[in-house]
Amino acid sequence: MTRFDAGPLPSLEQQHRDPQRYPDGVAWLDGQYVPISQAKVSVLDWGFLHSDATYDTVHVWNGAFFRLDDHIARFRAGLERLRLQLPCDDTQLRTILHNCVALSGHREAYVEMLCTRGTSASFSRDPRDAQNRLMAFAIPLGSVANEEQMQRGLHLALSDIARIPPQSLDPAIKNYHWLDLVRGLYEAYDQGAENVLLRHINGTVAEGPGFNVFALVEGTVLTPDTGVLPGITRRTVLEICAEEAIPARAQPLSVAALKAADEVFITSTAGGVMPVSRLDGIPVGAGKPGPLTAAVTKRYWAWHADERFAEPVEYGR
Amino acid sequence: MTRFDAGPLPSLEQQHRDPQRYPDGVAWLDGQYVPISQAKVSVLDWGFLHSDATYDTVHVWNGAFFRLDDHIARFRAGLERLRLQLPCDDTQLRTILHNCVALSGHREAYVEMLCTRGTSASFSRDPRDAQNRLMAFAIPLGSVANEEQMQRGLHLALSDIARIPPQSLDPAIKNYHWLDLVRGLYEAYDQGAENVLLRHINGTVAEGPGFNVFALVEGTVLTPDTGVLPGITRRTVLEICAEEAIPARAQPLSVAALKAADEVFITSTAGGVMPVSRLDGIPVGAGKPGPLTAAVTKRYWAWHADERFAEPVEYGR
Repeated sequence: MTRFDAGPLPSLEQQHRDPQRYPDGVAWLDGQYVPISQAKVSVLDWGFLHSDATYDTVHVWNGAFFRLDDHIARFRAGLERLRLQLPCDDTQLRTILHNCVALSGHREAYVEMLCTRGTSASFSRDPRDAQNRLMAFAIPLGSVANEEQMQRGLHLALSDIARIPPQSLDPAIKNYHWLDLVRGLYEAYDQGAENVLLRHINGTVAEGPGFNVFALVEGTVLTPDTGVLPGITRRTVLEICAEEAIPARAQPLSVAALKAADEVFITSTAGGVMPVSRLDGIPVGAGKPGPLTAAVTKRYWAWHADERFAEPVEYGR
Repeated sequence: MTRFDAGPLPSLEQQHRDPQRYPDGVAWLDGQYVPISQAKVSVLDWGFLHSDATYDTVHVWNGAFFRLDDHIARFRAGLERLRLQLPCDDTQLRTILHNCVALSGHREAYVEMLCTRGTSASFSRDPRDAQNRLMAFAIPLGSVANEEQMQRGLHLALSDIARIPPQSLDPAIKNYHWLDLVRGLYEAYDQGAENVLLRHINGTVAEGPGFNVFALVEGTVLTPDTGVLPGITRRTVLEICAEEAIPARAQPLSVAALKAADEVFITSTAGGVMPVSRLDGIPVGAGKPGPLTAAVTKRYWAWHADERFAEPVEYGR
């Protein structure tokens, strides 16, 4: 019988002291508005132990939410698919999101609403026994691309890791299952790239960590049609193209077509429209951000003042 | 411009008050031993927001760990694959696990060690900027099957949802990506079953939520060979079969073979060896737990007193 000497029994402390530092932000949970440092999930929550949760992220730019209705609608659709229930209606949810931003003071904010399956006092293995749990938070707006990358274009690598397929998890349910993407990121770093694109199991282009991808191929803007997150920024780009009479459509996108594209850009709530100038070390088109990408980017930010999409936050109530 | 009236600005409270109840247990994090109610993960931790973490669960039965070496080795292998680093060596990790159990007082415990990518103060999108974080906890030992189910066998449904494939995420990295399994569970409940088995994309049998599956087919014990967690209980069953001269092997397992099996059982650290008596509403074999399953189950628990595998916890230090 193996004997292990663990030494004297340590004392049990009643209160955890958190040594971590966090960005400046405000969260809502359990009816309270608190500093983001207080926003935590029990290690026993299904949302952590089984990544059994869905979420949505919306951004605030120049003091106004962008397309908040669309983000809430997508969040609600994911909740329904996962059979998760919120403790509030959409007006209450919207109030929570506005208050998180107003209390944070951020005029440019990354705002997330999320719902976990929750915990049960018995640690039951039946998810129906758990109490679903809504959280929301606002922190400073970040971007997939930094300023230098916005100027010269991102350098991406294509990974051989397959994006988790729709047969396993419908990407329309916005989810935290990112280990394929994170492992792809590390592989990309190994190759000297800054970010990664994953393919579908069938080899066509899928998406990257938190972003969709577009390619200008023979005068048409293409983006993968299935097996990817139906991004709100992606949708905005397709709508901008429609309004500007730029040919655009969603369809399967081969790696060959992507690599032969005249321009490539990615889209995310975190950063908007961002140019790509290298794929696997090879220049895309002219090797710098292209005119179509610049035009779409300009319209994208112009739409932030458009009354169809902007919803101002009242900070000084 | 849409205007939304969020009402008066609420106050920001400094301290979150947790309304949840938790099972009785003890956790270790950030150098402290605390009640499990204090064991939380920041909502900004990659381990939550991207399920970027790995873990292992080991059980304590009759006051002794079972195969702790094997669980630590599997945990270390997963950490290496994800490029996560622990702040301690194996002796320190073992000390933490022993102390969690001893402080909890549980003679039958479910013990988990886990490591998340962690957080960065800047909320960087580069995982290399995050501070990796180890946690461990001990709570009462649970089981996939309750006592009634152990007597009459579990009723399982086969789902059409595909288990996340190895091309996306190697199941040898024990991970929290369970939404395929959770959605399968809900489908199984809809059909009046108690638990679920998922298939691989190619249609062969994979695994269920936290368990491997075995079938006795024409005198041989079969279990899926690839695309499943290399379970320690699964391995124990294969070793028991070898020691008892019961023909057994890992190979692709068709649904037809599973449904025609004389006996079916599942294995998990949470419950050990558990009989299955119905698949999609159809009786398995004689429709009750079979003699081979009973024999293996008996050996499994007998091995818990075997000095090769048992490591006693010193509670009263």
